[in-house]
Amino acid sequence: MLFKSGIGFIVLEMPCSFYERVLKKKEVNGLAAVHLEILKEDSRTRARLGKLHTPHGVIETPVFMPVGTQGTVKTITPEEIKEIGAGIILSNTYHLFLRPGHELIREAGGLHRFMNWDGAILTDSGGFQVFSLGDLRKIKESGVEFRSHIDGSLQFLSPEIATQVQMALGSDIVMAFDECAPYPCTHEYAKDSLERTTRWLKRCKETLTTTDTQALFGIVQGGMYEDLRRQSASEIIELDLPGYAIGGLSVGEPKDLMYEVLDYTVPLLPREKPRYLMGVGSPDALIEGVMRGVDMFDCVLPTRIARNGTAMTRYGKVIVRNAGSAHDFGPIDPSCDCYTCRNYSRAYIRHLIKAEEILGLRLMTIHNLRYLQTLMREIREAIKEDRLPEYRQKCFSDYGYEFD
Amino acid sequence: MLFKSGIGFIVLEMPCSFYERVLKKKEVNGLAAVHLEILKEDSRTRARLGKLHTPHGVIETPVFMPVGTQGTVKTITPEEIKEIGAGIILSNTYHLFLRPGHELIREAGGLHRFMNWDGAILTDSGGFQVFSLGDLRKIKESGVEFRSHIDGSLQFLSPEIATQVQMALGSDIVMAFDECAPYPCTHEYAKDSLERTTRWLKRCKETLTTTDTQALFGIVQGGMYEDLRRQSASEIIELDLPGYAIGGLSVGEPKDLMYEVLDYTVPLLPREKPRYLMGVGSPDALIEGVMRGVDMFDCVLPTRIARNGTAMTRYGKVIVRNAGSAHDFGPIDPSCDCYTCRNYSRAYIRHLIKAEEILGLRLMTIHNLRYLQTLMREIREAIKEDRLPEYRQKCFSDYGYEFD
Repeated sequence: MLFKSGIGFIVLEMPCSFYERVLKKKEVNGLAAVHLEILKEDSRTRARLGKLHTPHGVIETPVFMPVGTQGTVKTITPEEIKEIGAGIILSNTYHLFLRPGHELIREAGGLHRFMNWDGAILTDSGGFQVFSLGDLRKIKESGVEFRSHIDGSLQFLSPEIATQVQMALGSDIVMAFDECAPYPCTHEYAKDSLERTTRWLKRCKETLTTTDTQALFGIVQGGMYEDLRRQSASEIIELDLPGYAIGGLSVGEPKDLMYEVLDYTVPLLPREKPRYLMGVGSPDALIEGVMRGVDMFDCVLPTRIARNGTAMTRYGKVIVRNAGSAHDFGPIDPSCDCYTCRNYSRAYIRHLIKAEEILGLRLMTIHNLRYLQTLMREIREAIKEDRLPEYRQKCFSDYGYEFD
Repeated sequence: MLFKSGIGFIVLEMPCSFYERVLKKKEVNGLAAVHLEILKEDSRTRARLGKLHTPHGVIETPVFMPVGTQGTVKTITPEEIKEIGAGIILSNTYHLFLRPGHELIREAGGLHRFMNWDGAILTDSGGFQVFSLGDLRKIKESGVEFRSHIDGSLQFLSPEIATQVQMALGSDIVMAFDECAPYPCTHEYAKDSLERTTRWLKRCKETLTTTDTQALFGIVQGGMYEDLRRQSASEIIELDLPGYAIGGLSVGEPKDLMYEVLDYTVPLLPREKPRYLMGVGSPDALIEGVMRGVDMFDCVLPTRIARNGTAMTRYGKVIVRNAGSAHDFGPIDPSCDCYTCRNYSRAYIRHLIKAEEILGLRLMTIHNLRYLQTLMREIREAIKEDRLPEYRQKCFSDYGYEFD
C-alpha cells in the first residue's frame, strides 16, 4: 500500500494500524494495552473517577459492563448497546469455547469483528462456569475436566487453554483462569483454592504473548477470610499485572459480609490499577462498591430480570407483567430517557410480555441497561462534585432502601 | 390552543388535525379514506403500478405487507419496519380481541399509538382464525362461537363485533368478517359459505360508521369454483366498497389452481379499486399475483421461516442454520442492502440461531422482510419500464425456478 499522509510524508507498507502504533508508543511509555487514568479521588470515600484506556476506546469509570455471554448482549444489537451508553461489554470464554468454538471466532477475525462490536470487550476465563458445574467437573493441578452443558462431551480447560482461547477471541481484557470458592467454605478449602489460583495465574501470564493489545487481570480470591484475602492480594500483585479483580463475592453471602470483605480487600490493591468487582450489578451494591474503591462491575441481573418482565427504576423495581400495568399508558419511568421509555407504554410492554413477544424482551433489556448506565453516570457526577455520600442517601431513599 | 400560522392567520381552537382536514376535503371530492391512484397499467399483463392513499401515508403498489399479529411485527421495532421499507402492516383482530382486548387498545388511543407505528395498518377480521379452530368453533347465522386458544374461554365474533373491534383498533383498512372455505370443499359448501359471507358483509358495512378514516374491504370467496367466484364478486361489488380482497386462496391448493382462480377472478373486480390477495408471500406467487392484477399481499411466511433459520434471497432459500454456513464469513446475500447483510456474517447468524439467541431471530426477520420489499420495488420498476415478464423470467431463473 502506498499512503500519502496529510502532513506530506510518503509511507510505504504501513506496518500496522494507526491504533497499533499509538499502542506501541504507549508501551514505550510503559503503559499496558489497558490502563486506568485516575481523574479524581473522593475525599470522604475510596471512590475514584477515571478513564479506562483500552485498544477499543476510552471508558469512563466507575463503569457497569453489560454481559454478552454468547457473543451478543441478549436481544439487542451493538448499535443499541452504544445508544444505551455502554462502551465495554463482558463475554464468556466458557460459552464461546464450547460454541461456536474459539478457532471459528479467530477465523472470523476475533470476537469484535464476529459480533460487529467495535467497543471494548472483557472476557472472563471460564473458571467460574466450570466450577459451577459441580459433579460434572474434576479439578486437577493441570486444569479442570468437565462435561459440556450443551452435549455432555468431555472438555478440558486449563490456565493455558483459557488464555489461548481469550487470545483467539481478541478481547481487550483477559481474565485469569481462577477458582471461585463457593460460599460458605472452610478456611482450608479457601486457602488451597487461592494458592492454586495464584499458581494458575502465573501460567496465564506466561501464556499471554499479546500484551500489546490484551491486558491480563489477576483475581483476588480467599473466600470471606481476611488473612486469605491478604495472602491472595499480596501474591498476585507481585506479578505486576495491568488490572486486578475481586472474585469469590456475590456468590450467596449476605451483602454486609461482601461489603466487609471489600472494606479490607480493596485497599490491598495498587492505587493506579483498575479494580473490577465480578458479578455485581444491583444498584445498592454498585454504589457501595464504588464507595469502597471499585472501578468496574458486571452482572447478568439487569438483562435477566428484564426478560422476566421486571424493570429497574430509580423508584424501585416495577413488575411490568403484573396487572397493575395493564391500563398504565405512561412509560416505565417518566424520568428515563431510554428508547423504551421515550416510545412505549407500560400497558403495551405488558401486552408484549404476556403475549410472549420478543420485542417485549428487547424493550425491557434496553430500559434496564440504560437505567444502570444512568446510575453509573450519576455516580461519576457525584464523585466529581464531591457529593457521593449524599447521592447514595438520595438513591437509597428514592428506591425505598431495599435496593434489590 | 392559539396558533399563529406561517402565513399570518390566527387560528383559534384548531378543530381537527391537518390530515383530518385533508381527509374531509377528500370526502368532498368523493374519495374514500383509502383509495388507489393508478399510475400505469402494464400492456402485456394485468399488472398495475399505483399509490395507495391511506390516512397514515401513501404506499406504492404492488405492495407486500409484513404481518404483526399481536400488535408487533415479531422481533422488530416500528423504526426497523420503516428502515426495511414497509409503509403498511397487517395486524390480527382475533389475537388483539382476545389479548390485550380491543377496549384496552381503544383506551390507549388506537393500535397505531399503542404500538407506536405511524404507518398504515390493515386488520383482518378474525374470520380466518376462528374458522381455522375446527371443532373449537360453531358457525351460526349471527356469528361464530369459539373457544379462545389462550385460556379456552367461550368467545363470540360476528360481523358487527369484528367491525366494532376494528373500529376500536382504528386500522386504516378494515376487513369484512367472512368465511374462508377450506380446500378442498364441495360446491354446495362453498356456495353456502360465500352467500353467508355476502350477508355478513352487508352487516359489516352497516356497522362501520367511521368511513372518513377507515375503509372496509369486502372479500371474494367461492372456493375453486368459477361460477361461485363470479357470484361472490358480483354480490360484493354491488356494495361499492373502497377495496376488494380475494380470500380462500393459499389454503393448501396447488399453485397452478390458485393462478387459475386469479385468472378469472381478478378481472371481475373494479379496475379503480385496490385488490388484495390474502395470505400470499412466496416470491413466485407475488410475481404471478401482480401479473394477474393484484395490488396488495400479506403473509407470515418471511417472518416465520426467518425464525426457523431460513433466509430468502434472490438466489433461493438459504438454510442459515445448516453446517454449510458455519465458516461462511460473508453476508447472507452479498447483493442485499439490509441491516443484517451490511453488518453480520452467515457464520455469526448461524451461531446465534444455534445458541438460541434472540438477536439471530431479529437479524433473520429483518433480512427476509427486506428481501420481499426489494422484490416488490423491483417488480414496480419492471412495470414502470415495461419489462415485467422479462423480470419474472430472470427472477425465476436466478432463484432456480422452484420458487418456494
